[in-house]
Amino acid sequence: MKEHRAAGLEQVNPLLTDLYQLTMLQAYYSSGMEETAVFEFFVRKLPAGRRFLLAAGLEQLLAYLQELQFTETELQWLRDSGRFSDACLERLADWRFSGDVAAMPEGSVFFANEPILRVTAPLPEAQLIEPIAINLLHFQTLIASKAARFRLAAPDGLLVDFGLRRAHTPDAGLLAARAAVIGGFDGTATVAAGAAFDAALYGTMAHSYIQAWGDEYAAFAHFARVHPDNAVLLIDTYDTLAATDKVVRLAHELQQEGIAIRAVRIDSGDLDNLSRQVRAKLDAGGCQAIRVLVSGGLDEHEIAGYVAAGAPIDGYGVGTQLDCSADHPYLDCAYKLQEYAGRPCRKRSTGKATWPGRKQVYRNLTDSGLFDDDVLALESESQAGKALLQPVMRQGQRLHDSETTEAIQQRVGDGLARLPASLRHLQADTDASGYEVRISEELRALAESVDREAD
Amino acid sequence: MKEHRAAGLEQVNPLLTDLYQLTMLQAYYSSGMEETAVFEFFVRKLPAGRRFLLAAGLEQLLAYLQELQFTETELQWLRDSGRFSDACLERLADWRFSGDVAAMPEGSVFFANEPILRVTAPLPEAQLIEPIAINLLHFQTLIASKAARFRLAAPDGLLVDFGLRRAHTPDAGLLAARAAVIGGFDGTATVAAGAAFDAALYGTMAHSYIQAWGDEYAAFAHFARVHPDNAVLLIDTYDTLAATDKVVRLAHELQQEGIAIRAVRIDSGDLDNLSRQVRAKLDAGGCQAIRVLVSGGLDEHEIAGYVAAGAPIDGYGVGTQLDCSADHPYLDCAYKLQEYAGRPCRKRSTGKATWPGRKQVYRNLTDSGLFDDDVLALESESQAGKALLQPVMRQGQRLHDSETTEAIQQRVGDGLARLPASLRHLQADTDASGYEVRISEELRALAESVDREAD
Repeated sequence: MKEHRAAGLEQVNPLLTDLYQLTMLQAYYSSGMEETAVFEFFVRKLPAGRRFLLAAGLEQLLAYLQELQFTETELQWLRDSGRFSDACLERLADWRFSGDVAAMPEGSVFFANEPILRVTAPLPEAQLIEPIAINLLHFQTLIASKAARFRLAAPDGLLVDFGLRRAHTPDAGLLAARAAVIGGFDGTATVAAGAAFDAALYGTMAHSYIQAWGDEYAAFAHFARVHPDNAVLLIDTYDTLAATDKVVRLAHELQQEGIAIRAVRIDSGDLDNLSRQVRAKLDAGGCQAIRVLVSGGLDEHEIAGYVAAGAPIDGYGVGTQLDCSADHPYLDCAYKLQEYAGRPCRKRSTGKATWPGRKQVYRNLTDSGLFDDDVLALESESQAGKALLQPVMRQGQRLHDSETTEAIQQRVGDGLARLPASLRHLQADTDASGYEVRISEELRALAESVDREAD
Repeated sequence: MKEHRAAGLEQVNPLLTDLYQLTMLQAYYSSGMEETAVFEFFVRKLPAGRRFLLAAGLEQLLAYLQELQFTETELQWLRDSGRFSDACLERLADWRFSGDVAAMPEGSVFFANEPILRVTAPLPEAQLIEPIAINLLHFQTLIASKAARFRLAAPDGLLVDFGLRRAHTPDAGLLAARAAVIGGFDGTATVAAGAAFDAALYGTMAHSYIQAWGDEYAAFAHFARVHPDNAVLLIDTYDTLAATDKVVRLAHELQQEGIAIRAVRIDSGDLDNLSRQVRAKLDAGGCQAIRVLVSGGLDEHEIAGYVAAGAPIDGYGVGTQLDCSADHPYLDCAYKLQEYAGRPCRKRSTGKATWPGRKQVYRNLTDSGLFDDDVLALESESQAGKALLQPVMRQGQRLHDSETTEAIQQRVGDGLARLPASLRHLQADTDASGYEVRISEELRALAESVDREAD
């Protein structure tokens, strides 16, 4: 359907950048500041209650880097704005990303202060991409990391993304669906995510469907006959238990036609209590095979509660809490200059100091294969452990085909399995200590020397 | 640049919908359920601390309704999925929105349970658009309403949207910029919002710019000479007060070249204290005309605090807290079937009951022109007050040209001026009562009769 099918997004408008990126570019061009810059993207601090993150969004970022250019339409608009010199506009007309990129593969577990992206490119190239590089990595990392919490809450439950309507724009719904599946969801209701990413699709019916029929039994019966393989019936429009009786009656009627109702969905009320009553009625009616799904503003804590209580719930539709990461809708992240023209840089702003230089992250495992600790080191050092940042783009060209969702999901599964148990808690108030990210001796020494030179 | 220039978004992929919309459509088509449906979009409950909302997103929704159709690419994908009958796919190939739409104009102040959109169309048309109708109205309403809180916090301050990088996808950054300006911001750093919506653009420089130079004075001097009309210098990369001294020195040097530095920006540290010290240094150095801007994770409460404390801050760059509506990243909203084939519908699910029928919202003013109360009534009633839902689309065609941002801003200004003072508080814990939305006698009677029939 498109060249970068896995990316899913239409080409991003090159004017989707900050004004200051373009004004800085004019200053760089006019002063010949086009030597190699190294920028890294990292999360400064995890939100309260989050103990790990999952890297995501690289696929869309690489597609953006390969495709980004200014067409005459945008150049004309910039020209008409009167803000830019002809010399600058000529350079923008030729702008292409020709740099190198190293990154943690999507689905990698990572922690605060660890770069998941390192861009090495002429300064005007590495600079311009800042807002969209942050934007694309931030959002899917946020949502994939949130999705993993739902998976930890319900290891065996069916988890389906229902969040398109509450996502922040249609594109956010699409990428949230991708990130949800990366983070451990079984699928999504968003059809475009099926087309773009081969995400498994799930759907039920809306209250409006039942209401338009008026007669709930007739509504159920017609839907099941039209979709004999996929009938999931919504039972809370009027009276959940009365609707369950209708489902039992219908199931027997349909059995003679060879049609099996797959599941019922409860979207409101006391889901623990209702799921038990519905399950009991279904079982008593000989409908042991019909599964019970629930939805309605669910977060991972509620789901963990149902699982702990042993509520007979087979699956969960999750919308707002996932697609908006509603408890923490952003990460404190940054894309920072670490080196320019061979000179390491360090930001020292209060509360926002960074580690200088081109860095690598090394991960050590315990004897039993769990994550033991990470070391934040200079790229030039040799350190024990696995190097997590891998080359993914050289001179503006991708080095590998797009990863399949399955490959990314496997990486997530492996990572979560190797996560120390203390990092798998959902609650913010448990006193488990965080994961250790050590700073190498050489990196500390470099930071001190950068500070000394600046003073 | 495009037919619906004010819309800003590229055409939305028709597969950006929930799977159940398409499966319901197949059930509707196969049973001939294509009579007129009326759906309304409303917010069920305002988030804690929010006392009013501003309607936004209608422009993008109307463009979506006019443009939405399935191309052969999408139809082929649906065909290949094996989920849909040929008869259903034929109908989807011809799908166009041919309905009527009434809405509150963008920028209208509204309250819980008041529809801001009423769609009247054959059921399969009104149904399919559900997720994107919610998505587009929800997001900009959320952000415009948040933006208004910043404006209430700083009535006279310059407010600029810096949020592209933390918005949930690039499109969210674009539409957040639009919503910010609707809600009272002076402008945005997002260039595409200037091109798409004529939003005023503002920009400064990044820490990376200063760091790449290494020499802060040289970095300032070069930038001001390259952008003599728009030099806003970032002064917190190393030492804010030392940088201020450099700005004063540079201002005198540049004065001889006819260049005036417009402002400085402080992005970290104790902004109240720093702004006073920076202001004092600038004034002592004869730079009274240089303005002081601040940024760095600001929310409306912090800004209200600086204003109350009399900090000498002229403007605020706001990112994450605005573009993610970080304290409340979603609204509890719905798009609900209110009538089908002339029969009023009412959802009675626990905690989610709705008012049935085609409705209108009437607003009454006090003698001094403030909002007094609203009445939620049936469209067929005659009620005192101004009717807030106005026809905007008939038989799938827009009735009016796109509104200018200025017209929408004027409506917001008028609305905020008429808002009772008790509704303008930013704090969640003040005990001001909410605004009264009365339910008309006829609407209550209709709800009761719908309930009786369902029992």
